[in-house]
Formats: sequence, structure tokens, C-alpha cells
Amino acid sequence: MRKLFHQPLCPFCRKVRLVMSEKRLSFELITETVWKKRPEFLLLNAAGTVPVLVEETGLTIPDSYAICEYLEEAYPDTMLMGRTLAERVEVRRIVAWFDDKFNREVTRNLLYEKIFKRFFMNSNPSAQSIRMGYQQIKFHLNYLSELVDKRSWLTGNHLSLADFAAAAHVSALDYIGDIQWEKYPAVREWYARLKSRPSFRALLSDRISGLVPPKYYSDLDF
Amino acid sequence: MRKLFHQPLCPFCRKVRLVMSEKRLSFELITETVWKKRPEFLLLNAAGTVPVLVEETGLTIPDSYAICEYLEEAYPDTMLMGRTLAERVEVRRIVAWFDDKFNREVTRNLLYEKIFKRFFMNSNPSAQSIRMGYQQIKFHLNYLSELVDKRSWLTGNHLSLADFAAAAHVSALDYIGDIQWEKYPAVREWYARLKSRPSFRALLSDRISGLVPPKYYSDLDF
Repeated sequence: MRKLFHQPLCPFCRKVRLVMSEKRLSFELITETVWKKRPEFLLLNAAGTVPVLVEETGLTIPDSYAICEYLEEAYPDTMLMGRTLAERVEVRRIVAWFDDKFNREVTRNLLYEKIFKRFFMNSNPSAQSIRMGYQQIKFHLNYLSELVDKRSWLTGNHLSLADFAAAAHVSALDYIGDIQWEKYPAVREWYARLKSRPSFRALLSDRISGLVPPKYYSDLDF
Repeated sequence: MRKLFHQPLCPFCRKVRLVMSEKRLSFELITETVWKKRPEFLLLNAAGTVPVLVEETGLTIPDSYAICEYLEEAYPDTMLMGRTLAERVEVRRIVAWFDDKFNREVTRNLLYEKIFKRFFMNSNPSAQSIRMGYQQIKFHLNYLSELVDKRSWLTGNHLSLADFAAAAHVSALDYIGDIQWEKYPAVREWYARLKSRPSFRALLSDRISGLVPPKYYSDLDF
């Protein structure tokens, strides 16, 4: 069976899980403790990162960008990256916004500093990074509000990879209670629609031992 | 005419310039001082980053990942991303290696700390980051050596986007004298072949005022 190596709170893994579920691809989910640098895993991906997808044929695809582009080419029945050149540009622009800018300015400063460093690396979080993360998340949630205020989905009328990339980051930060929903009603409405999709179910039921999410985390009505 | 907003030493801009030249697309090159956050530029790309490509039709494409995927779809005559699914996976894996891992571990620690911060931001480089960059560049140049030792080009027998992504980072670091060529003969041989391509010419003749590259920087025989 198809295998996906992942970490439960990693937004890049979450994005791939959502895309695979939307495309109705079944897969076995394997939690990889990347920081242990397991030699067998490094043979699959010399970069040592998750996600890594291994197809039944043995074809091994590391990196969430490579995986999502591959899934769109290999399984085009459910298209998630737009049809016209302009639509595809807008999908990828927003994916890059979240996976690059949002990740650097928010996810790394909050999720990585507060959770990953403390729980998995036994090192101290940087107070300065956390402060920066809380400052910048406001700008980003306002930007997200602007987008979903004008459009049904992030890139227009069609649900796309852009929504899943954004929701993957948002859901990981929501697990640690860092989204102040009452301040961003338009984002909440958009996220509620995503949360109620079958592809979201597995994500919302995942739990990390010793780290309990807020009560509303898996509620469809929050 | 098509316009490309760029910064001369930015590896992501260099990658796009190489790809556009290989695809024989003419363009006007506009140096954007991104740190000044020019309002007209933020209208083109709210993320405020270069590269940004503006087509004659007005279609605006920010982000080097979105641009390279767009160029491959819009101008497929010269294919740079492989033909089979497996080839395309390998091209994107290596692009991600350089634009994500190499960038984070080497380019940001050396080019950003030593040049960008000092020349353009008037702030002090972090000695710790620079030390880390010099440590990690060895691992990466050894990895690059392994790849080009076994293959003509990074992903096999065909020149691809992977070569341009890697060469873009290498060329920017070479401008500041941070590649010790004598230690990596296989990488030098691969880079010499790339350097002699017409697409490389414009890159090698670019100069940043106040920052002189080593003599061998633009030599085809170095």
C-alpha cells in the first residue's frame, strides 16, 4: 500500500494528507521521528524531512511541493490547482505565501519554538521569536480575512490547493490554541467549511501525547 | 515588453533569469529595492519579494516556484522539468533541496548575513550564523559532488531546472568568494559547463556597486 511518512503537527504533512484524501487516494500513515535521523529514512529522503510519499511502485517523493505537483499530474481526476494558466498562478502564489512567508513569519516562530523545540528537542524556545510570531499572525489573519471576504475560496470560486495549504498551517496553530477566532469571523466561516469536509476528519482526530488541543479544536461548530 | 523585477544577487531571481534565457524569452530586467517597500511594487506582489514576472498581457506572477512552474506550462518548447513522472519528481526534489534546505542552511547564513544585512539593511551580521553557513556549505558541496560524479547533470542525462536552481545559489555565493573550487573538482567541472552557456552570460556580467567579485567569478576557465 501507498505510504506517507509524516509528523502529526507538521503543516506540510497536513497539506499533503488533505490533498490525498480529496483525491480519494488511500495510504498508510507512518509517524517518522525525523529528529532521530533514522538511517533507513535518510535513504528515502537524504534531506531527512517529512512528508515523504512512497508509491506502491516504489517511486519515492520527498518534499510537499514535489508531492503536491506530482499528485496533480498523476491523479488529475480531482483537479486542485486550477485549469487556466492564470488560475494556476494564483493557486501557486497563495501556496507559496503560506508555505514560505506564513511559515517563516508565523508557524516557525510559534509552533516550532513553543512545541517542537520544547517537546521534541529539549531546547528552550526563543521569547523574541514567539513575540514576533504573535505580532505577525495578526497581519496574516487579516490578509486571509481580506481574501475570503471577497471570494468563496482563497483563489476564487473553486476550492484549491491554496485552501489546503492555508488550512494546514491554521489547523496546526489551532491545535496549540494560537488562533483567536473571535477576531476573524470571515476566516472562521471559511475554516468551518473546510473542517466539515471528510478529508479533514483524520486531521482533527489526531492527538499528540502530552499535548491536549483546545476543546473547540475538532468541533465543526466553534 | 515582459518585465522581471529582481535583485542581482538573489538566487531565486537568478534561477528565473536562467530559465527564461534557456527558453529564449526576452524580458526587461528591473532592479527592485525590496527593502524600500515601494507601494506600486506591493500592488504587484503583496508579499513584497522578488522575483516577480509581469507578462505583456498584464498577468503578474510572483514567487520563483510559481514562475518556474508557469514558464514550463506556458512555454513548453524547451522542457526543463523532465518528461516522465519520475523525472519530474527528481527535478522538483533537487529544486526543493536547493531552494529550501541549501537556502536555509547556507545562502541565508552567508549571503544574507554578510552582504544583504551589511550593505542594504545597515545591520550587523551574526557571527554564529556565518560560522554555521561555512560548516554546512561543506556538506552541501559534497552532496553536489556525489550527484555530478554519477550523472552528467543533476538529475541524470538531461539539463534541467534542478541544475539552474543549484547553479543560481552557487553563482551568488561565488560572487562573494565563498566557494572553494579546488576542493570540489567535480562540482567545478559541472559549473564550468553551465557557465559557458549563453543563458549564464548576463548573470556573470552583473556587478553590484561597492562589491567586487573575485577575478575568476566570470572566467569560463577557473
